[in-house]
Amino acid sequence: MKARVFVTLKPGVLDPQGKAIHHALEGLGFEGVEDVRAGKLIELDLAEGTSDDEIAEMCRKLLANTVIENFKIERLGA
Amino acid sequence: MKARVFVTLKPGVLDPQGKAIHHALEGLGFEGVEDVRAGKLIELDLAEGTSDDEIAEMCRKLLANTVIENFKIERLGA
Repeated sequence: MKARVFVTLKPGVLDPQGKAIHHALEGLGFEGVEDVRAGKLIELDLAEGTSDDEIAEMCRKLLANTVIENFKIERLGA
Repeated sequence: MKARVFVTLKPGVLDPQGKAIHHALEGLGFEGVEDVRAGKLIELDLAEGTSDDEIAEMCRKLLANTVIENFKIERLGA
């Protein structure tokens, strides 16, 4: 079973990586970029029957820093 | 207009970050984790009318290293 975890910074949390990407895109001449936020994508290959609760527990304990980050779990073809 | 870019390592490319996450999950006692791959998620806030081609060009020039990474573009509410 495959699952994807999206980890994004909470709104209001400063994102220097996103700012750097934004600045670089402007430097390359791309117009109309208003904001950039950088996050993480973690693809998990799990044993059948792993519950959403278990995946959420992995996020809370390791994958995301819940003080400043949100996470979203998406199952693929389960 | 919002768009999301998912950047993932191509199959076969070694992923030490994913390996480290995998190892840490096992260390924390999570069972049934077979593989972990780490990628990036970039959220773009763009001017209306920015084309998919333009976003793909941003990926090729800056956001992804197309030698070892694939990218996927997803538009939100456009």
